[in-house]
Amino acid sequence: MTDYSFRLTTIPAIKERPKESNYDVVIIGAGPAGLSAALYSARYGLKTIVIAREMGGKVSLAPLVDDYLGIPSIKGSELARKFITHVEQHKVPLVIDEVVDIIKDGARWRVETKNGERYYGFAVIIAIGSEKRRLNVPGESELLGKGVSYCATCDGPLFRGKIVAVIGGGNSALSSAIYLSSLASRVYLIHRRNEFRAFKTYVDQAKRNPKIEFKLNRVVVEILGKEKVEAVKLLNKSTSREELINVDGVFIEIGGEPPRIFFEKVGIEVDGQGYAKVNPDQSTNLPGIYVAGDAAGGPHKYRFEQIITAAAEGAKAADATFKYIIGIKSKV
Amino acid sequence: MTDYSFRLTTIPAIKERPKESNYDVVIIGAGPAGLSAALYSARYGLKTIVIAREMGGKVSLAPLVDDYLGIPSIKGSELARKFITHVEQHKVPLVIDEVVDIIKDGARWRVETKNGERYYGFAVIIAIGSEKRRLNVPGESELLGKGVSYCATCDGPLFRGKIVAVIGGGNSALSSAIYLSSLASRVYLIHRRNEFRAFKTYVDQAKRNPKIEFKLNRVVVEILGKEKVEAVKLLNKSTSREELINVDGVFIEIGGEPPRIFFEKVGIEVDGQGYAKVNPDQSTNLPGIYVAGDAAGGPHKYRFEQIITAAAEGAKAADATFKYIIGIKSKV
Repeated sequence: MTDYSFRLTTIPAIKERPKESNYDVVIIGAGPAGLSAALYSARYGLKTIVIAREMGGKVSLAPLVDDYLGIPSIKGSELARKFITHVEQHKVPLVIDEVVDIIKDGARWRVETKNGERYYGFAVIIAIGSEKRRLNVPGESELLGKGVSYCATCDGPLFRGKIVAVIGGGNSALSSAIYLSSLASRVYLIHRRNEFRAFKTYVDQAKRNPKIEFKLNRVVVEILGKEKVEAVKLLNKSTSREELINVDGVFIEIGGEPPRIFFEKVGIEVDGQGYAKVNPDQSTNLPGIYVAGDAAGGPHKYRFEQIITAAAEGAKAADATFKYIIGIKSKV
Repeated sequence: MTDYSFRLTTIPAIKERPKESNYDVVIIGAGPAGLSAALYSARYGLKTIVIAREMGGKVSLAPLVDDYLGIPSIKGSELARKFITHVEQHKVPLVIDEVVDIIKDGARWRVETKNGERYYGFAVIIAIGSEKRRLNVPGESELLGKGVSYCATCDGPLFRGKIVAVIGGGNSALSSAIYLSSLASRVYLIHRRNEFRAFKTYVDQAKRNPKIEFKLNRVVVEILGKEKVEAVKLLNKSTSREELINVDGVFIEIGGEPPRIFFEKVGIEVDGQGYAKVNPDQSTNLPGIYVAGDAAGGPHKYRFEQIITAAAEGAKAADATFKYIIGIKSKV
């Protein structure tokens, strides 16, 4: 787990070490899933703590959010601030730290952190998100939020009438290119192979679309721009020659990197891609451990990584946790 | 389908008959699920229309909403207004009418309304909610939102330090009573039988809770109060005598009434309770028909009827619809 997803956050750190170590619920992560879980847990009267490397999650990185129903056109960092404020009103301690392990300890789970702290909870809700796979080319980090995006659904409307590139060859890349063609004046679909690993209907539709131009068998070697994205430099694998294409935006759609290693360390079952296999109530194979938000997967889940879907999973996890804890306490 | 869920709405009707009959997506219902679906559909550039009996859905009835992350302590009707405003910004027509049938017609679905209109969509997202089962006793409708509630999770915090009654004998009733005992000074659990149809752990926990008093084998015959709830009148089935209990709130937790008859008319498969059986992407057995929000059910769904969960399902349905329509259009 690199710290990419929180790197550019503008949310000030809320640092405090609560005196108390014993909780009903320990929530790990403070994006929409973790904060929604915290809000519901607190409302249920559960003794709750949130531990996260930084507050706000990936939302904080978004230049503009307009898809969270009821709050139109807001900066991601401001929306994250609203989420945090809402949870703070319920007096949930929010601690900056990194969880390194979760181990069963009597009736509770012991949550161990990098700073050497130990927190105990009857239940643990893991909402640590998932990272987007990166190209790892020069300009990618530097221009994130300045034309580089990992979410066409979220950031597409910022590129109305502009020229964009979509990088990738799977369903996400193809459907993003088709979507962006309804907004942008031109869409370059850049893929390192000649074939796509996507639904035939997507490929057919993209090929027939006059706004989409295929750039196959090419890899991105650099994203260029000063204040914002200006061009991408490609290497044509057939000719070994470099090409420069002027674009205003680059959408990188090459998959996600779930926290598989962390889940395997804790003993949480993962699906084929490495996301936690969750039941419809967000519970896992480990009783008392729930996973909500982008880190959750499995056959019951339709992956659509949005603020609203993550927040909903957090709420469900908290409700399931409340009911689980009734059971635990009836035995204690 | 009675009109209960929209009866008390304070949202002004937005009435207009759009000239156009052909759409990509016809959305039925304008609660959080329908409006979130509309927001996402419009953002995807799909030609979208919303048809609902009234705008806002059950949210409009809530005296106070504090569980929608990022918008603390707001009147339900004001929150619904925010949702509607957000969708209106995307120029989606919102039509007041009632859908009576949905019939396949060539490549599209024909949506027929009570007013005799016909709208056509490649896809239809049904987000008509589910009604709460009612006691059907005097005072119940009159005092709704004035002490009578169908959602402990939502309205519980309004009854801090007060006396409440919970009506019912299933898991919802028991877990609501336990939750409310953390807020209220006293909780009467009123059930018409002597046995519960709930998890043993819930029953055990409730029995051991000094704040919860069981009133079994009793039916509610009336809810009394002028401006707000003051008492419930019970009929003791063993003694055939009536009792009056002073309470500030009455939580009715006797299940839901999904729109089973409508689903069966359209040909949508339902689960054992009558909710639409949906896949993780909210699709149904009918290609192009999606169900989102409280009306959706089936084995992939964890039922937790909240604004945030309904809105998330609307978003997922819109994303799945967008991808479905790419496929449809590649064939047209």
